[in-house]
Amino acid sequence: MDEATLRERLAVYLVADPEATSRPLLDDVQAALDGGATCVQLRAKRLDGYDLWRLATTMKFLCAQFGALFFVNDRLDVALAAGADGVHLGTSDLPPDVARTLTPPGFLIGFSPKTLDDVTATARLGADYAGLGPVFPTGSKADAQSPIGLDGLRAQVAACRVPTVGIGGITIANAPEVIGAGADGVAVISAILGTEDPAAATEALAREVNTALAAR
Amino acid sequence: MDEATLRERLAVYLVADPEATSRPLLDDVQAALDGGATCVQLRAKRLDGYDLWRLATTMKFLCAQFGALFFVNDRLDVALAAGADGVHLGTSDLPPDVARTLTPPGFLIGFSPKTLDDVTATARLGADYAGLGPVFPTGSKADAQSPIGLDGLRAQVAACRVPTVGIGGITIANAPEVIGAGADGVAVISAILGTEDPAAATEALAREVNTALAAR
Repeated sequence: MDEATLRERLAVYLVADPEATSRPLLDDVQAALDGGATCVQLRAKRLDGYDLWRLATTMKFLCAQFGALFFVNDRLDVALAAGADGVHLGTSDLPPDVARTLTPPGFLIGFSPKTLDDVTATARLGADYAGLGPVFPTGSKADAQSPIGLDGLRAQVAACRVPTVGIGGITIANAPEVIGAGADGVAVISAILGTEDPAAATEALAREVNTALAAR
Repeated sequence: MDEATLRERLAVYLVADPEATSRPLLDDVQAALDGGATCVQLRAKRLDGYDLWRLATTMKFLCAQFGALFFVNDRLDVALAAGADGVHLGTSDLPPDVARTLTPPGFLIGFSPKTLDDVTATARLGADYAGLGPVFPTGSKADAQSPIGLDGLRAQVAACRVPTVGIGGITIANAPEVIGAGADGVAVISAILGTEDPAAATEALAREVNTALAAR
């Protein structure tokens, strides 16, 4: 996938965590795709490999119907077995360059750098895009660091030679500022999964993101 | 690896779980290899991918120096990244036939079937060997089923068309019975990691296993 296409597909990025919704996760993902999500990452830390693989396989199928990218968090083996478009890795997972030795051509690797040094290293490690944050305070991730803020995001985007999404505490209200700071997309959990109508929430989020992208 | 060689290398099989020892795990693995362990499986459910990969890489290096096989439990990606000889999968992990689509030639897949149906399916699923048990009551695995006993083991070995190791509550004292029931090896945790002198414990276990194998 060329970089321009990847940037486009990162615009409205749902991190699908079964612990963040009281509904069946696949229903929420379907709704988000209906609403215009361009990318979905399955993050389910408590699922065993078997259950994760089953869920990922269905979710990949669903995403493909909408032309959305599909990533699996952390588990490269499950991502590969499910035919995902890529894996998303953090600093406590397999390093991107090590993961790359196991992946077929075109398989995407996302990376969440922690420090500014990690951000600079992202491209060198062979990651295709970076998740930068937490931009704002967030309740969705128990082990989140302190927020980097919009200025921190702007600095990290500038230091990062691959496409980026902002993540952490992003809402429909503040999404335009995240795009304004240079991110190619916004990654959200509760802004979609934590709402009564995930399709409508995604649609509203997508509208804000696209308007902000068009205004850059 | 031909099947006869695999059977030999399964004889004295340490499941290396950091939660089962108060010492540094690598010290215990080194001691077990000194004492004659022929196979080591790293099982560390609480470690993140990064730490597991680092530990697995070192453990593989250590095992290779002794000509011992090295497996990683559950995480096929980590097993591949660490250059392990194989992965060991349970019924809640990636299925062996799915895992096989991601592995290079010669990479070994172990499987722990739960039911007699699973045992029969082991070879069909493409697993190279099976871990059968728990043979006896065990305290090392929180989610263990009720013991199958020596008669159950004998029945499962007979139904299994690949090499087998017995696992669960195996000690130096009862190891000969496990081999007598037809298993090619004994997989132990506390019989080595739970002792004051893991090298001496492994040596004593290896002696019993080899005597019982020679007497078949």
